[in-house]
Amino acid sequence: MAYEYEYPHPAVTVDVVIFTIRSDELKVLLIKRALEPFVGRWALPGGFVDLKESLLDAAKRELREETGVAAAYLEQLYTFGEPDRDPRERVISVAYYALMPSDALEIKAASDAEGVGWFTIDELPELAFDHSEILQMALERLVAKLDYSTIAFQLMPEEFTMPELRHLYELITREEIDARNFAKRILALDVIEPTGRDRREGAHRPAKLYRVKDRSKVEVIK
Amino acid sequence: MAYEYEYPHPAVTVDVVIFTIRSDELKVLLIKRALEPFVGRWALPGGFVDLKESLLDAAKRELREETGVAAAYLEQLYTFGEPDRDPRERVISVAYYALMPSDALEIKAASDAEGVGWFTIDELPELAFDHSEILQMALERLVAKLDYSTIAFQLMPEEFTMPELRHLYELITREEIDARNFAKRILALDVIEPTGRDRREGAHRPAKLYRVKDRSKVEVIK
Repeated sequence: MAYEYEYPHPAVTVDVVIFTIRSDELKVLLIKRALEPFVGRWALPGGFVDLKESLLDAAKRELREETGVAAAYLEQLYTFGEPDRDPRERVISVAYYALMPSDALEIKAASDAEGVGWFTIDELPELAFDHSEILQMALERLVAKLDYSTIAFQLMPEEFTMPELRHLYELITREEIDARNFAKRILALDVIEPTGRDRREGAHRPAKLYRVKDRSKVEVIK
Repeated sequence: MAYEYEYPHPAVTVDVVIFTIRSDELKVLLIKRALEPFVGRWALPGGFVDLKESLLDAAKRELREETGVAAAYLEQLYTFGEPDRDPRERVISVAYYALMPSDALEIKAASDAEGVGWFTIDELPELAFDHSEILQMALERLVAKLDYSTIAFQLMPEEFTMPELRHLYELITREEIDARNFAKRILALDVIEPTGRDRREGAHRPAKLYRVKDRSKVEVIK
């Protein structure tokens, strides 16, 4: 069955930049394309928007299909619509980015993907379409948001120490951060609390364990 | 001639929230719809994206068609895609917002619009589609951006005084702003310079006139 329109219509996709922290590095999920165009090339997970689902639902569906995990921070990033960005037809892509906590990942390969893997931000392969540009913008948004939001807590496990949280900020911004100022700034946000327990590692002083006070307040999905 | 696709395709539009300052108020441009759906209702200017133009070019075209002015700050805001936002068919709208300097406006009525007008933010009519939601998000973005960008200069005429600029911030944020802190903060941005002339009004002390140092640095169109 064919669909007919009086005027030409573009196709609309969602693409999702999925970040997490693994092996002490900021990583992004990529899918190896099993179909043309760009067969064999790595790409962001994504797909066509179903005519009856919202854009956010389409992004959630992609996320679930690719990672097997439903809950995550998910936010619309930007819409990419250069006329020649897809060789098949005019395809407009609404890009989202998602953050996955480092301790909650069970990655499944998607049905239309030959391979799936976490890539370190500094060692990315050449990507299909304009996906490098999308990924770059997501990274810039993430860095910018560290300064004025509680977005970073999305990447932390249930319980964490202040040095671990600071280390996350350092991994993302690639800058060294002063420990005392950092702790002061984070505690002033009033979103984390001590669990009452410590973590002791190697010869270091024991560090207080913290948790997010109210997860619903930082898990803003919009 | 009809266009056929194997899968259903949505229609894609751009809608543009155009802000300016007139009569000492923050205003937005609205168009009275001459066609169904929502005939007679006010709406944001917008229209279908041509299959061969980029999204930004489509937004620029709408801006030019509605206002007769090409140059303005123009930025992508968000993409709205609820399945039922348009009663005709699935329509996904990429929303932009634009800022027009208060001294550079020559508004033309658009060919498909019965009327066109500047509305004060506090006295908006009921809008067609989800345009109230789009407008509200544009307003929030504008207020947020005042704090970390030079976006406000887009709304100022060529030459302006510091009290005039502060007044603009007050109009947008609806908050009173301390004059001395404001001047210090603005000058620290290092984007405006004194013209060497003063403006004298009524019984007030003469106020220094400023201009933007390099317009290309604040006229970021992306």
